Amino acid sequence: MALIGKLVVCGVGLIGGSFALALREKGEVEHVVGMGRSRAALNRARTLGVIDEIATDWATALADADHVLLATPVGQIDTIMTAMAPHLQGRTVVSDVGSTKGGVIAATYQRLDAHLARIVPAHPIAGAEKSGVEAASAALFRGKRTVITPLPENDPAAVERVREAWRICGAAVVDMSPQDHDRVFAAVSHLPHLLAFGLVHDLAGRANAELLFSHAASGFRDFTRIAGSHPEMWRDICVANRQALLGELDQYLGELALIRSLLLSSNGERLELLFEEARQARTQWGERDAAERKQAENF
Amino acid sequence: MALIGKLVVCGVGLIGGSFALALREKGEVEHVVGMGRSRAALNRARTLGVIDEIATDWATALADADHVLLATPVGQIDTIMTAMAPHLQGRTVVSDVGSTKGGVIAATYQRLDAHLARIVPAHPIAGAEKSGVEAASAALFRGKRTVITPLPENDPAAVERVREAWRICGAAVVDMSPQDHDRVFAAVSHLPHLLAFGLVHDLAGRANAELLFSHAASGFRDFTRIAGSHPEMWRDICVANRQALLGELDQYLGELALIRSLLLSSNGERLELLFEEARQARTQWGERDAAERKQAENF
Repeated sequence: MALIGKLVVCGVGLIGGSFALALREKGEVEHVVGMGRSRAALNRARTLGVIDEIATDWATALADADHVLLATPVGQIDTIMTAMAPHLQGRTVVSDVGSTKGGVIAATYQRLDAHLARIVPAHPIAGAEKSGVEAASAALFRGKRTVITPLPENDPAAVERVREAWRICGAAVVDMSPQDHDRVFAAVSHLPHLLAFGLVHDLAGRANAELLFSHAASGFRDFTRIAGSHPEMWRDICVANRQALLGELDQYLGELALIRSLLLSSNGERLELLFEEARQARTQWGERDAAERKQAENF
Repeated sequence: MALIGKLVVCGVGLIGGSFALALREKGEVEHVVGMGRSRAALNRARTLGVIDEIATDWATALADADHVLLATPVGQIDTIMTAMAPHLQGRTVVSDVGSTKGGVIAATYQRLDAHLARIVPAHPIAGAEKSGVEAASAALFRGKRTVITPLPENDPAAVERVREAWRICGAAVVDMSPQDHDRVFAAVSHLPHLLAFGLVHDLAGRANAELLFSHAASGFRDFTRIAGSHPEMWRDICVANRQALLGELDQYLGELALIRSLLLSSNGERLELLFEEARQARTQWGERDAAERKQAENF
């Protein structure tokens, strides 16, 4: 018997679509219903075999649903939970894929407080400069992590269902508190995105932008890859996690002030030491990261 | 007949070694002499077949030399040119690979002013988070650019020799003024390196560094790849190009101040617009860059 009979995916893009495809591939879902803002995207998702059915209202979508995945930009979650509330049934497990957890959890307590036992916040860590259901793949989460941040009110069986679904997708499931989650990802994900968007935006606005871009090479390519990410998704992440992100940005501005002062005084010795410490940390992390990815491939 | 009879490479690392290997592969160099600070590295270069001979003094190295490539970190160029001056012969062409041109050219006028006709500054654009002769490859420059910044005093035949050598390595040769070169690369290369070193240095110094790094994923991997670059090389680049780099850093700090104010006021609309402009510029550049690389592969 499949883990999930009826799955509702709200926001059938890269992440939501890949979740459905991965469960389908393993025979762990029987019927997938898609919901979302764009009828055209839902039609493509159905044509591609990612979903079986399109629902246009929550009453229909939630009837006899076993599992709901909210895979929209996080800024829409509050509105969606408000719309879901009158129709959510007692046995349906709800999870999400938001890159920030604070706002999603606040909406959960405010809009779905009668259902806290079965609403399990989660965040699959899958790089996504591509977007849209066309980019969805059953393999997207294989060897990646999914962080879950269970609520104190969660029913252990609901948490286990979410955990198992992500394991079936090939992800390693890690538990964190929502606060830790939002601080950690502000540092290692949200800030780098902001910095890369900022650099490209800065250069693109110059009078000599054409000349600058024509000489950009591989270092620039990798550094700015994440500046190709989905603007609305990242707007929502930045706004939702602004407190932690501002803290990280200010800490980084302190680092840049240090570097600036070393440059101003031509302090090559201390600059080299700083670069050396960064290189060592990056190299160590890179080796561990490569080993983990290799292990995941063999999995 | 080979383009170069006797080639002297000072600093037989990734770049110097790859230049020698590429010319060897095409039969365009007859004899390669290595010089450098590290006898162990030179021994490895000879064992690997990158050089034929090790020289320990400039008198020996420069006797009957056709071509000299200075491939050390730029901070050593002034000392090297001073040592070369008494031994440099009238027909030897000298070039370098420095990522900044201002300091190299200043040293040229100060130390080798009797030889300006045949000293042609150059900069091959090849990403180099790896370093050392073990990473050298005849293919390193294939499909990449080499910028040359000829001096007004240069003999056209010497410029053509340097141009031809890089073409043989597979590079597209582009002319620029030294001032333009240093400003352009401050923006698209030196600043991103500084920002990546800074982010990793910042995170590595935290009490919870272990937790942070354990959740870093593909976005972080690409953004920080250049933080694995050679600390001494980048110290020298930053110090040599500090004026242009400080200008770029200050411009970027202005961009971050704008982003910070949008975050502080939760101005999602303008954040999204900024991200969208960055994404468009990055996507356009990325498509052009990918097309150029594909063309280079077929070359």
